[in-house]
Amino acid sequence: MKNVKNRSKKTGLLPGTLIHIGEQKTENTRIRLIDYDETQFKEMEISSIEECSSFKDRPTVTWININGIHDVEVIEKTGQCFNLHPLLLEDILNTDQRPKMEDYDSYVFIVLKMVFNDDDKKEIRTEQVSLILGRNYVISFQEVEGGAFEYIRDRIRNNKGRIRKLGADYLLYSLIDVIIDNYFVVLEKLGEIIDGLEEELIKNTKPGTLSSIHQLKREMIFLRKSVWPLRELIGTLERGESVLIQDSTRIYLRDVYDHTIQVIDSVETFREMLSGMLDIYLSSISNKTNEIMKVLTMIATIFIPLTFIVGLYGMNFKSMPGLESEWGYPVVVTFMVVIVVFMLGYFRKKKWL
Amino acid sequence: MKNVKNRSKKTGLLPGTLIHIGEQKTENTRIRLIDYDETQFKEMEISSIEECSSFKDRPTVTWININGIHDVEVIEKTGQCFNLHPLLLEDILNTDQRPKMEDYDSYVFIVLKMVFNDDDKKEIRTEQVSLILGRNYVISFQEVEGGAFEYIRDRIRNNKGRIRKLGADYLLYSLIDVIIDNYFVVLEKLGEIIDGLEEELIKNTKPGTLSSIHQLKREMIFLRKSVWPLRELIGTLERGESVLIQDSTRIYLRDVYDHTIQVIDSVETFREMLSGMLDIYLSSISNKTNEIMKVLTMIATIFIPLTFIVGLYGMNFKSMPGLESEWGYPVVVTFMVVIVVFMLGYFRKKKWL
Amino acid sequence: MKNVKNRSKKTGLLPGTLIHIGEQKTENTRIRLIDYDETQFKEMEISSIEECSSFKDRPTVTWININGIHDVEVIEKTGQCFNLHPLLLEDILNTDQRPKMEDYDSYVFIVLKMVFNDDDKKEIRTEQVSLILGRNYVISFQEVEGGAFEYIRDRIRNNKGRIRKLGADYLLYSLIDVIIDNYFVVLEKLGEIIDGLEEELIKNTKPGTLSSIHQLKREMIFLRKSVWPLRELIGTLERGESVLIQDSTRIYLRDVYDHTIQVIDSVETFREMLSGMLDIYLSSISNKTNEIMKVLTMIATIFIPLTFIVGLYGMNFKSMPGLESEWGYPVVVTFMVVIVVFMLGYFRKKKWL
Amino acid sequence: MKNVKNRSKKTGLLPGTLIHIGEQKTENTRIRLIDYDETQFKEMEISSIEECSSFKDRPTVTWININGIHDVEVIEKTGQCFNLHPLLLEDILNTDQRPKMEDYDSYVFIVLKMVFNDDDKKEIRTEQVSLILGRNYVISFQEVEGGAFEYIRDRIRNNKGRIRKLGADYLLYSLIDVIIDNYFVVLEKLGEIIDGLEEELIKNTKPGTLSSIHQLKREMIFLRKSVWPLRELIGTLERGESVLIQDSTRIYLRDVYDHTIQVIDSVETFREMLSGMLDIYLSSISNKTNEIMKVLTMIATIFIPLTFIVGLYGMNFKSMPGLESEWGYPVVVTFMVVIVVFMLGYFRKKKWL
Amino acid sequence: MKNVKNRSKKTGLLPGTLIHIGEQKTENTRIRLIDYDETQFKEMEISSIEECSSFKDRPTVTWININGIHDVEVIEKTGQCFNLHPLLLEDILNTDQRPKMEDYDSYVFIVLKMVFNDDDKKEIRTEQVSLILGRNYVISFQEVEGGAFEYIRDRIRNNKGRIRKLGADYLLYSLIDVIIDNYFVVLEKLGEIIDGLEEELIKNTKPGTLSSIHQLKREMIFLRKSVWPLRELIGTLERGESVLIQDSTRIYLRDVYDHTIQVIDSVETFREMLSGMLDIYLSSISNKTNEIMKVLTMIATIFIPLTFIVGLYGMNFKSMPGLESEWGYPVVVTFMVVIVVFMLGYFRKKKWL
Repeated sequence: MKNVKNRSKKTGLLPGTLIHIGEQKTENTRIRLIDYDETQFKEMEISSIEECSSFKDRPTVTWININGIHDVEVIEKTGQCFNLHPLLLEDILNTDQRPKMEDYDSYVFIVLKMVFNDDDKKEIRTEQVSLILGRNYVISFQEVEGGAFEYIRDRIRNNKGRIRKLGADYLLYSLIDVIIDNYFVVLEKLGEIIDGLEEELIKNTKPGTLSSIHQLKREMIFLRKSVWPLRELIGTLERGESVLIQDSTRIYLRDVYDHTIQVIDSVETFREMLSGMLDIYLSSISNKTNEIMKVLTMIATIFIPLTFIVGLYGMNFKSMPGLESEWGYPVVVTFMVVIVVFMLGYFRKKKWL
Repeated sequence: MKNVKNRSKKTGLLPGTLIHIGEQKTENTRIRLIDYDETQFKEMEISSIEECSSFKDRPTVTWININGIHDVEVIEKTGQCFNLHPLLLEDILNTDQRPKMEDYDSYVFIVLKMVFNDDDKKEIRTEQVSLILGRNYVISFQEVEGGAFEYIRDRIRNNKGRIRKLGADYLLYSLIDVIIDNYFVVLEKLGEIIDGLEEELIKNTKPGTLSSIHQLKREMIFLRKSVWPLRELIGTLERGESVLIQDSTRIYLRDVYDHTIQVIDSVETFREMLSGMLDIYLSSISNKTNEIMKVLTMIATIFIPLTFIVGLYGMNFKSMPGLESEWGYPVVVTFMVVIVVFMLGYFRKKKWL
Repeated sequence: MKNVKNRSKKTGLLPGTLIHIGEQKTENTRIRLIDYDETQFKEMEISSIEECSSFKDRPTVTWININGIHDVEVIEKTGQCFNLHPLLLEDILNTDQRPKMEDYDSYVFIVLKMVFNDDDKKEIRTEQVSLILGRNYVISFQEVEGGAFEYIRDRIRNNKGRIRKLGADYLLYSLIDVIIDNYFVVLEKLGEIIDGLEEELIKNTKPGTLSSIHQLKREMIFLRKSVWPLRELIGTLERGESVLIQDSTRIYLRDVYDHTIQVIDSVETFREMLSGMLDIYLSSISNKTNEIMKVLTMIATIFIPLTFIVGLYGMNFKSMPGLESEWGYPVVVTFMVVIVVFMLGYFRKKKWL
Repeated sequence: MKNVKNRSKKTGLLPGTLIHIGEQKTENTRIRLIDYDETQFKEMEISSIEECSSFKDRPTVTWININGIHDVEVIEKTGQCFNLHPLLLEDILNTDQRPKMEDYDSYVFIVLKMVFNDDDKKEIRTEQVSLILGRNYVISFQEVEGGAFEYIRDRIRNNKGRIRKLGADYLLYSLIDVIIDNYFVVLEKLGEIIDGLEEELIKNTKPGTLSSIHQLKREMIFLRKSVWPLRELIGTLERGESVLIQDSTRIYLRDVYDHTIQVIDSVETFREMLSGMLDIYLSSISNKTNEIMKVLTMIATIFIPLTFIVGLYGMNFKSMPGLESEWGYPVVVTFMVVIVVFMLGYFRKKKWL
Repeated sequence: MKNVKNRSKKTGLLPGTLIHIGEQKTENTRIRLIDYDETQFKEMEISSIEECSSFKDRPTVTWININGIHDVEVIEKTGQCFNLHPLLLEDILNTDQRPKMEDYDSYVFIVLKMVFNDDDKKEIRTEQVSLILGRNYVISFQEVEGGAFEYIRDRIRNNKGRIRKLGADYLLYSLIDVIIDNYFVVLEKLGEIIDGLEEELIKNTKPGTLSSIHQLKREMIFLRKSVWPLRELIGTLERGESVLIQDSTRIYLRDVYDHTIQVIDSVETFREMLSGMLDIYLSSISNKTNEIMKVLTMIATIFIPLTFIVGLYGMNFKSMPGLESEWGYPVVVTFMVVIVVFMLGYFRKKKWL
């Protein structure tokens, strides 16, 4: 996750100027339209947003999904067609948004982050999803085509569950629900990695442990940044000052709200665990240095004095007492053995052994 | 305590789909029913939830206890029988819930965590308990059959205390009270372990101290996670917007609320103590390394120069002053003694001795 | 201070069951009664709480002080006599209470912690004091007989100050005031210890410094735990929704409130200072290790190469250049002196000397 | 960024005394006036503020930009001309202001910090910008002439966007928007530096890494200090109790408010990342010391005993067993090889190799 | 700054008993009276507070300044004369007050801390200032005679600025303003010291650095303690529920309020900077130890094996291969050179050189 996208190219531009900020993640912009009510269902891929206009004022629920937001023109036309505020369009195009909700009376605008594990690069990837809830339509903007929304399409197609019986606000809820569910998938993976690291930490630290902890801490910082605003966002939706959200949907939003709290809880728990792990890592490094120092000190403390003694009797003085004696050598050797025994006793007393 | 249970298998499913998340902790689902008022008492084990229906509308208090929530069908039928919201049933089945209270007007839904010491595995275990308070019934869902609720059954059977005289809300209070009391048991045990560790820390650190502290810190993180939401939960119950809770019960709930605050206080105190212990541990490791270094340095500082001197006179130069002299050896030895004395004085001045 | 008292023996008992939790600190329970108004004064020791009943409804202020709360029967009779709620009696007996205030309309119940220095054991001791303010009586429960309340008895006896002119609420204020004043005594003592430790830390750390800091940090954790709730407690009293407290007393309670804030301020300051001291301690240990390493490294760096050189010329090769020469020895010695000089210069450049 | 400017020269002066605090950043004070409405446009440079008076009461929007605030007289005359409060003028002159908004009913006063990268000195520079919004005028005070406002002049000149159609409040918004946009530019640069440092940290720490982290942490402290008050400031503007700000402008202010939150988010993220990096740095230093110690200990542990052995057979005792034997030398050498092999095995077991 | 003054001597005394707590800082108590309105001005030194009475009820503003608060009698008489509450007098005498404001309807009581640099002792000194604002008088109590208020006397004498035209509340504002301004002087000095320390830290740490940082951190703790309550105090004054403060003065109080926020901001910034510096200090100590270890390890790693080799050929075995050979010596020396070259290469690879 890159932390600051190059927003600087917007400096000095007119507010409302439409520029895509972020990397282009898909090649073509693809517009898919689903129109349904309890009895009818229609699904089609359209090439130009203008084709949607006919669906706009029908009482059926219309869901327009736009994949690939780098095409400024499409966004602009959508804006004209559905009479959206230019600042809102700007926000859709800027993939560096903080999750937020804005109520424009006749429609509600929501920006979210969808997260998923990128198994190839072994990191978490984020995608910005913008949702617009109108009277009887939902427009969703994705950076790439992800499989997450397919679940919902399926439910609509096959008339599973309540979704066909309820309005556009329930569709909005379903989309948000899927997005939040994805956080659990990512957190589960992270949980496994953290558990693994923890075991590694206690048993035997590898050289990479430190940078793994660091990497995870960093990911937590970013995850947290995208997760905390969700709480307020969904809480506001649920308390629901917007007339576009029916009371019957609120109970579902409360459920999503609970999930969000749980996601935040988990992120905070992981953060605490990682902090704890870093402390443990540092402590165990100190411990190891301590162990190594003990070995060194014991070796040095035993052998340096002995080496001195043998050096002493290696001096070439003509007259040195004992050198001539037959007992000189055994006495000296015995003396050295005594020193060693004494030292070992000292180490045992100090609990080094 | 595992941190994130595999919720991922729920991704994309319909909201309200009933799937059991968590490990199955008991073999059979067991349903026990107690029906009582001040004068009557009936206790029975039933095999199918439908048998409860007849008790539902009687003015007596009915307590249905369901052990083992892995049997989705039982939960589903309970839902139908008591007309419970599908999202609520989903929450009961998902053992990864954050403690919470939800007021569905005609009934109140509460999820709690019961904790207890698992003496075999030397760790704390958590069990999710869901409680539903209706007009004159309480339904409780447990993962395993624990002895904790037996106390209350006993009181009802033997008509001890107020319980038979009061309504379902007092029964609910009694259940919550027992659950909170269990936290004290766990905390007491943890307190003893921490006190033991602290003594160990000051007297003599064993190799396992660090991982014990780490283990305890981790348990605190999880305990905290299950304990903080309790405050809000019980506070909301006590302030009591629900008509199902009578004013006379509020004073008891205030008492439980105070207990909850005390549990939170203790958890926070333990957290602080453990943080302090880790600091002390780190400091004492540094201290020990320092001590070891002193020994090494003293040995090296005394003997390395001496070894040099004896090596000097061990050189094989033909003409070296002193070697031939009778006084050479005593002079050199005296010189070395002087060095040792001087060094010891230096160490004493530096307060190393 | 023990952190968690054995509350576990309460698990599963009926709410309102009276059991004494905590250690018994005094042998006999002693009940003292003082009854006064502006003109009259009566002081007596009574053996049974029933003797108080006659004073209950008189317009004079009655102060009943009960020392030793381990006698459950006395507490129970007091409850019956003054018509107190069973949960309140339970709280009095449980010496593990968090400071709190409860307003039971016809009386106000307050639990506080009194602290004092135990000069023998060199630690802070806590005692739980429960106060009940009724229409024209105050009942105080103490674990042991402390001298603190004697001041107030004296004032009443000798009609010093306002106390005889004012009601039971002023008596309550006076008792709380004395309890808070005791915190200042304890904090002053702690302040001196901390100042002493700090000086020790900067001048010369003794081996005991670390555990002293740790001990103080621990005491701060417990002091803090008993002091923070006081703020809210006295604040609530002062804002005074209770009719039992007259407006003229509020200004005195505001004064106590200010004192409480000051106590909290001091505790927090001490905590910060102790944290700072631990940091300094760690830094100075690192510093010392660094100093020791310098000495070792200098000795080793100078003498190890020299020892190699003398060893070189101690080899027993038949043909080695220089050994035979008369200048061999002086040249080698000079070379070694040069090395030493060079090394000393290097150390000076590195600012090790 | 210097942290405290010499405000001390103000001590004891009359409140409202006009003194410039801060360094003079430009030579001459330059006053530029732009007057426009949808149809007219006039731009001029004026030498004395009195020339503005004629524009003051016209219905067109008048923007007066004053570069260089060291000239106290200009500020004073502006105050007289537009009837501004002396304390406000004092605030304009004091470049050590905290960002704030003050509503003087007939005009709104705003102080902000503009930040930009100073590429020469490789540091972030701050400039204080004061804005006054009146009925149909905006006065802006800058310390130096920066290019940032040129974008807006351009839009007015060329009638780009909405700006000519809307009132003075929209002009105010545009100025604030440009200032906030500059924060993104600075943060982007900092983000790149931090990313670079992080890579450096993991791959190979250079000596300068530590002081770079320190420098960045310091800059974050100051950035944070100038950024946090913005939130409240713009929030107050947006909620808009001032009649000078029209409802249609609020939506734009909400957009700026979102940007401010994002700036704060980024600053906090950077702070956390830098903290993490410092931890990693410390850990990796400990790691390295550990590695070095291992090498030392291995060398010492292998060779010190060997050196003792060879010293032993270097002693000059007349009668030492083995010296005369032909097998003495090979046996000793073999013994030493065995020791080495044993040691290496020990190290491998300890995972040092 | 001593942290806890001996309040213990107050324990058990009657509330409202007047005892001076703190050290006596001046010898005599000095009372100065200034009486003025727009046209008149009178300044006199009085020996007894009773002389003030005549000024009390006149419409002119009367400012009574009392230097030296150790004289309990003076304070007591002031209380009688102006009808002040005994608890208030107690607060004036106790120099250990937390800054606070109390509204006694007919007068407002304010306690503040004035700080100044004590250049002799190189530390910050605090003095308690108590202010009483009545209908048309201000009474100020100072511990010592400081020059700070002289500025204001001067303004009154010479009728500079608004002060003679406005009431007692403006005088109160002026006094507070001067006190807050003194904080800036102290902070500026501290800022310089911190900047100096920081430079020292990066270039070359001296032994005193650590204790300087510690000293500054301590001073920050105390500064913070006296500065935070100011915010609330002045905020309350400004929101001004007191009738004694006119609306026209509020704008000035808002200005002082802004200054207070800035003082708090600076204190917090300094605290953060000092924390950062301690981290850097610790890191650089670790770094240095690391450097020293490298030197030691390189020396030991190169020379210990060499010393072994020369020791090997110093053994006195009769038959050792090579000793007799002419090439023995050169071969061994060459071998040692190869070892050294290899070692240096290894160190370079490890980036130790």
